Amino acid sequence: MAEAKLNVGFLGLGIMGEAMARNLLKSGLFASVTVWNRTLSKCEPLKSEGAKVADTPAAVVAACDVTFAMLADPDTALAVALGDNGAVAGISAGKGYVDMSTVDEACSSKIGAAVTAKGGRFLEGPVSGSKKPAIDGQLVIMAAGDKELFDLVQPAFGVMGKRSFYLGATGAAARMKLVVNMVMGSMMGAFCEGMALADKAGLEQSALLEILGLGAMANPMFALKGPAIQARAYPPAFPLKHQQKDLRLALALGDALDVPLPVAAAANECYKEAKAKGLGDSDFAAVYESTQKKA
Amino acid sequence: MAEAKLNVGFLGLGIMGEAMARNLLKSGLFASVTVWNRTLSKCEPLKSEGAKVADTPAAVVAACDVTFAMLADPDTALAVALGDNGAVAGISAGKGYVDMSTVDEACSSKIGAAVTAKGGRFLEGPVSGSKKPAIDGQLVIMAAGDKELFDLVQPAFGVMGKRSFYLGATGAAARMKLVVNMVMGSMMGAFCEGMALADKAGLEQSALLEILGLGAMANPMFALKGPAIQARAYPPAFPLKHQQKDLRLALALGDALDVPLPVAAAANECYKEAKAKGLGDSDFAAVYESTQKKA
Amino acid sequence: MAEAKLNVGFLGLGIMGEAMARNLLKSGLFASVTVWNRTLSKCEPLKSEGAKVADTPAAVVAACDVTFAMLADPDTALAVALGDNGAVAGISAGKGYVDMSTVDEACSSKIGAAVTAKGGRFLEGPVSGSKKPAIDGQLVIMAAGDKELFDLVQPAFGVMGKRSFYLGATGAAARMKLVVNMVMGSMMGAFCEGMALADKAGLEQSALLEILGLGAMANPMFALKGPAIQARAYPPAFPLKHQQKDLRLALALGDALDVPLPVAAAANECYKEAKAKGLGDSDFAAVYESTQKKA
Amino acid sequence: MAEAKLNVGFLGLGIMGEAMARNLLKSGLFASVTVWNRTLSKCEPLKSEGAKVADTPAAVVAACDVTFAMLADPDTALAVALGDNGAVAGISAGKGYVDMSTVDEACSSKIGAAVTAKGGRFLEGPVSGSKKPAIDGQLVIMAAGDKELFDLVQPAFGVMGKRSFYLGATGAAARMKLVVNMVMGSMMGAFCEGMALADKAGLEQSALLEILGLGAMANPMFALKGPAIQARAYPPAFPLKHQQKDLRLALALGDALDVPLPVAAAANECYKEAKAKGLGDSDFAAVYESTQKKA
Repeated sequence: MAEAKLNVGFLGLGIMGEAMARNLLKSGLFASVTVWNRTLSKCEPLKSEGAKVADTPAAVVAACDVTFAMLADPDTALAVALGDNGAVAGISAGKGYVDMSTVDEACSSKIGAAVTAKGGRFLEGPVSGSKKPAIDGQLVIMAAGDKELFDLVQPAFGVMGKRSFYLGATGAAARMKLVVNMVMGSMMGAFCEGMALADKAGLEQSALLEILGLGAMANPMFALKGPAIQARAYPPAFPLKHQQKDLRLALALGDALDVPLPVAAAANECYKEAKAKGLGDSDFAAVYESTQKKA
Repeated sequence: MAEAKLNVGFLGLGIMGEAMARNLLKSGLFASVTVWNRTLSKCEPLKSEGAKVADTPAAVVAACDVTFAMLADPDTALAVALGDNGAVAGISAGKGYVDMSTVDEACSSKIGAAVTAKGGRFLEGPVSGSKKPAIDGQLVIMAAGDKELFDLVQPAFGVMGKRSFYLGATGAAARMKLVVNMVMGSMMGAFCEGMALADKAGLEQSALLEILGLGAMANPMFALKGPAIQARAYPPAFPLKHQQKDLRLALALGDALDVPLPVAAAANECYKEAKAKGLGDSDFAAVYESTQKKA
Repeated sequence: MAEAKLNVGFLGLGIMGEAMARNLLKSGLFASVTVWNRTLSKCEPLKSEGAKVADTPAAVVAACDVTFAMLADPDTALAVALGDNGAVAGISAGKGYVDMSTVDEACSSKIGAAVTAKGGRFLEGPVSGSKKPAIDGQLVIMAAGDKELFDLVQPAFGVMGKRSFYLGATGAAARMKLVVNMVMGSMMGAFCEGMALADKAGLEQSALLEILGLGAMANPMFALKGPAIQARAYPPAFPLKHQQKDLRLALALGDALDVPLPVAAAANECYKEAKAKGLGDSDFAAVYESTQKKA
Repeated sequence: MAEAKLNVGFLGLGIMGEAMARNLLKSGLFASVTVWNRTLSKCEPLKSEGAKVADTPAAVVAACDVTFAMLADPDTALAVALGDNGAVAGISAGKGYVDMSTVDEACSSKIGAAVTAKGGRFLEGPVSGSKKPAIDGQLVIMAAGDKELFDLVQPAFGVMGKRSFYLGATGAAARMKLVVNMVMGSMMGAFCEGMALADKAGLEQSALLEILGLGAMANPMFALKGPAIQARAYPPAFPLKHQQKDLRLALALGDALDVPLPVAAAANECYKEAKAKGLGDSDFAAVYESTQKKA
């Protein structure tokens, strides 16, 4: 006998969330997909594609077996989970809550504790990958928390991502995500410095990109972001302010664990500078602009 | 009518040079391959494989149409080219000298000027790639200087590398190589900080490697060096002291051009620390050890 | 008619707190001085000099007109103020609470709000200066919050410090203290790098100290800490872990305000390294050890 | 019997040099003072005060017992000493040459070797202190090289400086000067970050200056440069490009000696950024502008 299809919810329809929710919807694997966003008008496209819309996070959770959340930062994740009419208000025994936002461990633990206190099941599931992998269902999902819930949501993870990892108790995925994004932020900083130095040294940036693409450092990120940097146009796939937030959180983790991270610390200052220049909502490749100093 | 085969020379049989000279020899494309190394005993393996051996750089150049050099640092490159019985002493009209060492522009220009002053032709040709690509003939060659010489040595570049670029007047390749290696040094620094933070945060380094390998940052260098870092064993493919030298030279270039490079500057200090710990002759992945501080 | 003398309390008898409480006691300006410390045995010396001892922070506050607190870090400050039998439990209308710990603004604001919610008056009053100025009553006090309370405690500030500043609403003093300590942490980092480079460059550290002492950079901190660094002995006046905490909090403030602080970020990593080497409880001049890398 | 008065020369009449030469002239301790500057018109004020003027460095040296030089950077120092009609061309047995420019050790050694090769005596004598101490004869002079020449020029050092140190063989003073200026550059960077953070955090910069002036960090440099930073006006006492050059040279020294200097490396990037913004000829306090990022 086939298992009954799940009713799933999705909270937060930003760049990433909308694409992820759409993949759940399009898969046909779920009995229903109910969405919510703080600005409710952002729900319209998905509604027209067949999603249900609820007025509050609590209403989504109450209507679904499992609810996924993809929110901008720890404060928003906390507010959506724990605020008035927040997700936890809708939790009852057995319901699952999967927070895929990139948040710090304290935040994740706090939400997890509130969910389990009401008999719910909690999984943190931050992802690696930005806009395009989200659209293509090619995210990499780092999960930690309730192992049974991890197994239950495999079909959902399967349409949102190309691979999911179970990393242990709640908090492990938050930490892994920070480590991955810290490496990414520093690596982009390294790349932008190379692009800037090439340019000032009278070398073609396109030659640098070609040479990097042929060697041991060849990677999709340089190939994707290189042309954006050449054009100095940064439509947001992963907003710079979120990259900076992740560096900040990773540095705080290193601080708590006494791990010196001088490269990441230097990179973080570059992102802060770009943010101060008004580029927080641009793609994180806009950190290139921090290398451009002419008066 | 077929062109006559060239007599080629090779100066400097270190980790890279020996492999490159062997590929010239094995190709069968050259009338002869004559080698020289400061410690002459290092010429023995190639001699037994068919290479000629000469006593001095001057003698190699005198005996060959084109001579390649692959030396450890600017001082050595200058000494081999300009010292007593150095390469330039063997230059006469029409002979080619291709210095593939990673050196700064001033050094390259000085050697190039000395070669052309005696009627010779000069090309700088630093490479991207270390031990394994050198063995496999898969280096990426960045060349600048005499364009006719570049065309003439295409067969040699073809067996040593998978791709060669002509970048302009002498100095351009030196600068490009520095930019590439600066990116590499910072990127390895970023990677090592990630591996260290994962470990201290109770995460499996192998999971981090797998996750990085699935995302936009996936690259051969992380895949190759990750296990070395896990094992904390660093047999030298690209010695750490050379990586640090390249960061130093790139920072000096940025300094001359007023390009702030805070990420590379921070990474450079990590390599200096690893060097101070006695790891200068280890692989540059040993910069990981600079993240390990316990008393 | 003379004003009645105040009954004052003091919470936290660490290196700084004990000296400050003793100065209150010795002044004879107060009707009584009641002290508390988590490890109660630390109250004995002051008790023998005439202080009263109470069992809990709440009991101190209940017994006094104004209570001062000098605690190690934000968590401790929060626990002592807001925990079971904490200071706030003893607050009633009109009582004053002056928290002189170095804490972040959020912490200070939280404590202030709790105090005023019960009708009390709150002042934050972090200090500049460590062990010796504390003993000599020569601290510099940065105060913010309730202006009337600031005026009321002038006699107490006068025996603990040589100067007190009223900086505005609660939070302003916390921020000023962080700025001051951030400058101090970076400046000590700069000094230690100079001492290390002098030593490695074959110069006498004593000559460097003398030369610095004659120029525009001459300052008491270099004069005081120089000999400690020469001796590589670091009896704690200001524990390194607290200096690192302040750098961390200052960087977080800069992060929130989009102020790039690359020098402080680099210095912070040095303190983290020294902490990882087990020097957290040594004087902050022990950051010199982070420059000593030999295997 | 009184010793005969010396005929002294002075090469380089920049901000510092003119003031130093004037002090020699005004002292009345010397039989004559002969000056030279690349732009000869800059000699006019001193000429009107009684100095002789010569057309070339060689002519100055030929006319004097001891010649002092105060030049902008190593290239200028080398050109003035070793170029056509340079100082060394005027050296004969027994003549003294005292180079007070801030140069690296290699530069100093090269000039010293050329002087002694012609039978002359050489002393390097870089100074600590900028415009005002130069005017007031309050420089601190770090000397190394010929000890007899050091003793001979004590009267001259006595009118230019408040204290002179003999530090050992040629090169020691160059290294000491770099160490001192490295500390100064980092310390100014630390100070500017504090001023910037105070401002963004809603605090009065004047309060910060007052608080710093009361504590262990109190020093003349903060007191002097603080108001300049508040006014964001930077008339050059010590040009920023020279401070950046000294950081660069100090980092190169640390690089050669395997001394990690992450704080100085971060500070150097700030000066480079200020230089890129066109502030190279402003006072080094203009590094404050590198903290101001608004688009």
